[in-house]
Amino acid sequence: MNHEFDAIRTLFQQRVPFKQSFTSIANGDDASVHCIPQGMELVISTDAAVAGIHWPLDTPLHIAGARAVHASLSDLAAMGAKPAWIWLSVLAENNDALIAMSHGIVESCLTHHIELAGGDTVRSPNNAINVTVGGLVPKGSAMTRTSAQQGDEVWLLGDLGLSTAGLKQWQSGDINGKFVPHFQTIQPLYPQGITLREMGIQSCLDISDGLLQDANHLCHGSDLGFSIELTNIQSLDSYQQLLPHFGAEESLNMVLAGGEDYALLFTANPSLHNQLEVLGAHKLGHCIKGHHVQLTHDDQVIDYDVKGFDHFA
Amino acid sequence: MNHEFDAIRTLFQQRVPFKQSFTSIANGDDASVHCIPQGMELVISTDAAVAGIHWPLDTPLHIAGARAVHASLSDLAAMGAKPAWIWLSVLAENNDALIAMSHGIVESCLTHHIELAGGDTVRSPNNAINVTVGGLVPKGSAMTRTSAQQGDEVWLLGDLGLSTAGLKQWQSGDINGKFVPHFQTIQPLYPQGITLREMGIQSCLDISDGLLQDANHLCHGSDLGFSIELTNIQSLDSYQQLLPHFGAEESLNMVLAGGEDYALLFTANPSLHNQLEVLGAHKLGHCIKGHHVQLTHDDQVIDYDVKGFDHFA
Repeated sequence: MNHEFDAIRTLFQQRVPFKQSFTSIANGDDASVHCIPQGMELVISTDAAVAGIHWPLDTPLHIAGARAVHASLSDLAAMGAKPAWIWLSVLAENNDALIAMSHGIVESCLTHHIELAGGDTVRSPNNAINVTVGGLVPKGSAMTRTSAQQGDEVWLLGDLGLSTAGLKQWQSGDINGKFVPHFQTIQPLYPQGITLREMGIQSCLDISDGLLQDANHLCHGSDLGFSIELTNIQSLDSYQQLLPHFGAEESLNMVLAGGEDYALLFTANPSLHNQLEVLGAHKLGHCIKGHHVQLTHDDQVIDYDVKGFDHFA
Repeated sequence: MNHEFDAIRTLFQQRVPFKQSFTSIANGDDASVHCIPQGMELVISTDAAVAGIHWPLDTPLHIAGARAVHASLSDLAAMGAKPAWIWLSVLAENNDALIAMSHGIVESCLTHHIELAGGDTVRSPNNAINVTVGGLVPKGSAMTRTSAQQGDEVWLLGDLGLSTAGLKQWQSGDINGKFVPHFQTIQPLYPQGITLREMGIQSCLDISDGLLQDANHLCHGSDLGFSIELTNIQSLDSYQQLLPHFGAEESLNMVLAGGEDYALLFTANPSLHNQLEVLGAHKLGHCIKGHHVQLTHDDQVIDYDVKGFDHFA
């Protein structure tokens, strides 16, 4: 009778049967209802991904579906929250597109044990996916952009530039290029985000628009500056991977300005230095007075033209 | 530097400064963080509205913006929840479209005292708006689609068919037509939804796709049927308003199958009959055995061809 409802049931609800114990009314009503456990806070973020903007039009749509879910999970990683639910809107050009996107979305929910708590499928002239993600964090412990402190060191956990390199390879027709999987598959680092929060880290964000651009958001939020040392950037595993393929200049630009790797950028008291190295985090620099990111090379300030991703530039 | 962030700040954040007391971390971080008050449950719904699908392409975009917010608020009305937050994604063809949509969205947030808790603006080949809305309800009291009982009467609160009539006038060029405001302006009936919940109503939904189609969702959810009496439909104020403009047959079809009026359909114990009449609700019929809606005329079952709105028909 109503194909929209049948599609939601067969493509999504039946394939993601998992429910959180603290969900009172699940997917299928006008809204979902959730009882937040004592001592916990609710963490929510929403993000849209649009065909032709956030993914090349020739990207398989199941990949686009998974990317959309994982990009939203990354926002929870940045807060140190444990993912619990997504509420989904799938804007699909046609039924085939809806089905293809559903495959990636469903697989991601199952992989990360996330409840599909609500959703909507609508026809659209252009494929797009909106994911609202909800998670939980112990009261008062969420990491923020406003909590970096003078004296903190600046750290990175995760890759930089590999997604941009993969996109470049894909767009140049090198569809089996070494870095293509880094563009196609986002690894949301929420287990790492939870670990950082539990270690006492207070300031963190995920890098979606490029290291330098997003680092400035942490600086502005916390009313301080960052000094980042180029030799630390050049010793990153990401840079070393890129170097033989793209040369020094382009590799550096990819690492400093490339978006969509969803690495975590955070600041930490120097007393945590050794623990963070054990975790696989990389120290990039330290907090300074000011409001921006400065790059240094052997401690001398250098000029660098920042380019990040900007939808409405 | 980053126009996207400037746009979010100037078009949205600065114009909706209101924060709920139980919001711990507000709009501007990777996610928002909320402490749900003791004894309350969180109610969440998400909906997308797409240009050319959910609104005609010649609709002013501030109207589209307000409609998107109000349609989502209507889902909270159906649950009997009090609106608290929205998380927003605006997919805009260009800056002018973004600005126009923002006007309607901001005005709606201010009117209904809703916190804009998070959001995203992205470029898109096609304008669209996704609104995730969050509200609160006392634990265990949310109205649902699964709680209608044998013995209950079936009731309506709100208009039917007027939005469809307005859309028809608009599309035929009668842009000042009597019913156009009913299409352009959605009245989310959440104060009424809260009143119904407080009266002890347990089963409710909002009618977005047409009375008969949505009534079937209540029937399926509650494993019973509805018997709706045509003379009750014909005595509705909506039907009486439509009759002189569209004649008996088309008016009836608009009332039974027209979508987007966002009236509340609910069932109630007969003991609440008088209270509900005082509220301005209209009795349509009663619950019966079965799984579907049947129409009667002077208590004789009649055939009626159901047509509702279906995105993927």
